[in-house]
Amino acid sequence: MEKSEFGVVGLGVMGSNIVLNLADKGVKVSVFNRLSKGKKNAVEAFLRGEGAGKKILGFTNLKDFAQSLESPRKILLMVKAGDAVDEMLRGLLPFLSRGDIVIDGGNSNFKDTARRLDELEDSGILFVGAGISGGEEGARNGASIMPGGNEKAWGKIKPYLQKIAAKLPNGEPCCEWIGGGASGHFVKTIHNGIEYADMQMIAEIYQTMRKSGKFSNEEMAEVFEKFNRGKLESFLIEITAKILRHKDENGQFSLDLVLDAAGQKGTGKWSVESGAELGSPISCIAEALFARFVSGMVEMRKSGARIFGSECKFNMPSGAMGAVLENALYAAKIIAYAQGFSILSAASKKFGWNLNLGEIAKIWRGGCIIRAKFLDRVTEAFSADCDLENLLFSEFFAEEIRSSVNSLREVSSLAAQGGISMPAMFSALAYFDFVRQTESPSNLIQAQRDFFGAHTYERTDAPRGEFFHTKWE
Amino acid sequence: MEKSEFGVVGLGVMGSNIVLNLADKGVKVSVFNRLSKGKKNAVEAFLRGEGAGKKILGFTNLKDFAQSLESPRKILLMVKAGDAVDEMLRGLLPFLSRGDIVIDGGNSNFKDTARRLDELEDSGILFVGAGISGGEEGARNGASIMPGGNEKAWGKIKPYLQKIAAKLPNGEPCCEWIGGGASGHFVKTIHNGIEYADMQMIAEIYQTMRKSGKFSNEEMAEVFEKFNRGKLESFLIEITAKILRHKDENGQFSLDLVLDAAGQKGTGKWSVESGAELGSPISCIAEALFARFVSGMVEMRKSGARIFGSECKFNMPSGAMGAVLENALYAAKIIAYAQGFSILSAASKKFGWNLNLGEIAKIWRGGCIIRAKFLDRVTEAFSADCDLENLLFSEFFAEEIRSSVNSLREVSSLAAQGGISMPAMFSALAYFDFVRQTESPSNLIQAQRDFFGAHTYERTDAPRGEFFHTKWE
Repeated sequence: MEKSEFGVVGLGVMGSNIVLNLADKGVKVSVFNRLSKGKKNAVEAFLRGEGAGKKILGFTNLKDFAQSLESPRKILLMVKAGDAVDEMLRGLLPFLSRGDIVIDGGNSNFKDTARRLDELEDSGILFVGAGISGGEEGARNGASIMPGGNEKAWGKIKPYLQKIAAKLPNGEPCCEWIGGGASGHFVKTIHNGIEYADMQMIAEIYQTMRKSGKFSNEEMAEVFEKFNRGKLESFLIEITAKILRHKDENGQFSLDLVLDAAGQKGTGKWSVESGAELGSPISCIAEALFARFVSGMVEMRKSGARIFGSECKFNMPSGAMGAVLENALYAAKIIAYAQGFSILSAASKKFGWNLNLGEIAKIWRGGCIIRAKFLDRVTEAFSADCDLENLLFSEFFAEEIRSSVNSLREVSSLAAQGGISMPAMFSALAYFDFVRQTESPSNLIQAQRDFFGAHTYERTDAPRGEFFHTKWE
Repeated sequence: MEKSEFGVVGLGVMGSNIVLNLADKGVKVSVFNRLSKGKKNAVEAFLRGEGAGKKILGFTNLKDFAQSLESPRKILLMVKAGDAVDEMLRGLLPFLSRGDIVIDGGNSNFKDTARRLDELEDSGILFVGAGISGGEEGARNGASIMPGGNEKAWGKIKPYLQKIAAKLPNGEPCCEWIGGGASGHFVKTIHNGIEYADMQMIAEIYQTMRKSGKFSNEEMAEVFEKFNRGKLESFLIEITAKILRHKDENGQFSLDLVLDAAGQKGTGKWSVESGAELGSPISCIAEALFARFVSGMVEMRKSGARIFGSECKFNMPSGAMGAVLENALYAAKIIAYAQGFSILSAASKKFGWNLNLGEIAKIWRGGCIIRAKFLDRVTEAFSADCDLENLLFSEFFAEEIRSSVNSLREVSSLAAQGGISMPAMFSALAYFDFVRQTESPSNLIQAQRDFFGAHTYERTDAPRGEFFHTKWE
């Protein structure tokens, strides 16, 4: 029997769509899914359903699956992140040979990926952790793919991963080698962290319009549609407009019936933990994560409303709002992305990954959730200067910020007065005003630390690295 | 030879002062410090210096040290957090007997404390992780002590720890049993996290006065002194005034020469990591941590100032500022503490520690860095209702917030307009406006997640726990 070029383990939503995507591209694929007691045979169902009539071989036995693959084997795991990945690796290992390649395409914690790379080192299996963004639609028609790990694998898997990746208008695939170690899953984690911030900021803008009392859902949709024809053009803005317009079968706006309790699955947490560990101030992501936590405390918020009232009001003439909100969101978004790229840079230095930030922005340009027109400019900025200290300092973005930050000030100021909760946008503004501040009040913090703990401090009139102590009392 | 009642390992600043404190209270103490090549004998130096003429026995040999102690031995480790604690435990173990007590009094990561409790379980050694706050001064004259771990140890060590603890005006010691597991070190970690937020907020208030251009350092000191006679009365406010007044030998204000690059040592990070892990929105602590990170990026801030200018201005008539800033800081501080107590409550539930939050507020009332008058009211609030959903909702604090939050709005609004970076106070306001919001914009976030990832959502017209999916396109 002719062997398959590529194997996929796990026929969930993401896995099955990736298989169909590969098959469409003419790749002969073997698929494996384990049999679960009491459940239908997922492999059989898939081969009879969506997978029918394609060059797909199905297996419920790992040995047969492995034997059906060309050497070196190229196997993509699309199983639930966590223990299931380790289990599957243990199950597969006896049927693999040195030089075979296993790609974990799930949303794995990058620390697990680093551990698995270590554990597999002696086996000769080339392990790759690949972040894949784009959801069901991306899996089927083109995802944004961030592979990292054992670089010896790259040449062999590149044709396949690039085939199923989204393509830019110029035909370039949204998939390039990210780097060694756990870099692929780390970059995906920060992608998701940025996504948290982006979504929270869009929600805050939605709230200003809603609480101004001057916009119907359809009018808000129009505002977002207009945003999407301008500098904010992006997938998240596009779907926001669609969501605002959507009505259920009773003619009610669907969004109005959605409970405001936002879930989360791990990558936001890992981003924030990494920010703390790496000394990287990703405050917009942290605020977005914490906002999701508070949103989930529905009963507490009811008590809060009972005690303090839930009134809030955004006071701005409606005619002015469109342009001001667009600029405010744009400024805040650039700042959030700047924080995100900064933590990538910090991790790259710490772990020696040598990340190409411009390339990463390119990969995010298509297929993934945070795809946005302005990422072209991010690529340009890092291509022009790969050691850019801060994305905000590039010529293009500095100018964009200069021309839009006053709107962020205005919106933040009105929100503070009117009781609109705006954690992510406030945080963006505070960060911006900090990174341009050479006379910050942190001298007081150092003096306090020296006062109560003799932690010592540096001086403005002495070289860095010289430490002083004062008897303050 | 008469044996000692209590042993202390490590004669650093904290350790030696605790020994002197114990000796003053009539406790016979054995001390151990290892000999380091090329360094003077710390034990000898201590016994000849500060420790001279007291009931203190000194050792540089662990066996002799252990043999000098009454049974069961009570040994307080005051060594550097991290590997040194494990090393010392390994070194001591051969000379200890079942039922002996070892207390780690350092700033240990609570995860290490949990691990050490596990590791020591079979040995029969009763291990305690005790957070100790108060710096040198507290160690010498009365600290705030948070012991947790193996509860069988408590009866035996209570007299000693309470002797060296700070005392409240009514004589109660600032030391009570916190709970099982790593609760002592966890509570100390969050104490420090709150300290980060408190210090950052004070710094932000200092910046508004400085950047209003209307206050000399001495006038700012007066404002803080006035704060310290009112509802903000606290150690950190007190020392802020002293720092502002301090002049060096050339007559220059010392604070003006302190470089605004704030350091940090771990507990802030661990607080933020715990917030992410526990789903607890401690945004003020996170912003304070991130602000320290940005403060440390001195060169980056110089670039930022060159590109964007560092101008900022706080525009408020100086006559009004004192009262408005006092109220704003008070509101923000209450909110930061509410977040801190919320994460304690979340950890208590998750780990089954059954923490007494009112008692913890009492322990923090004296000796420690965040000691403050208003903590009495925190104790009252949790005594009246130990299941209080949120400190902000207690009768007293709800009223305090109602009467002060408008000042926080005003200050935040002016800071946003004027370019004053105010991450912690902005964050406090955004949190407050979120916890009283029953119609938050997080419905949009859930709808987006359902749109691109079929994550499903709950509905406002259906019971919690029922999940829906919409085909939004």
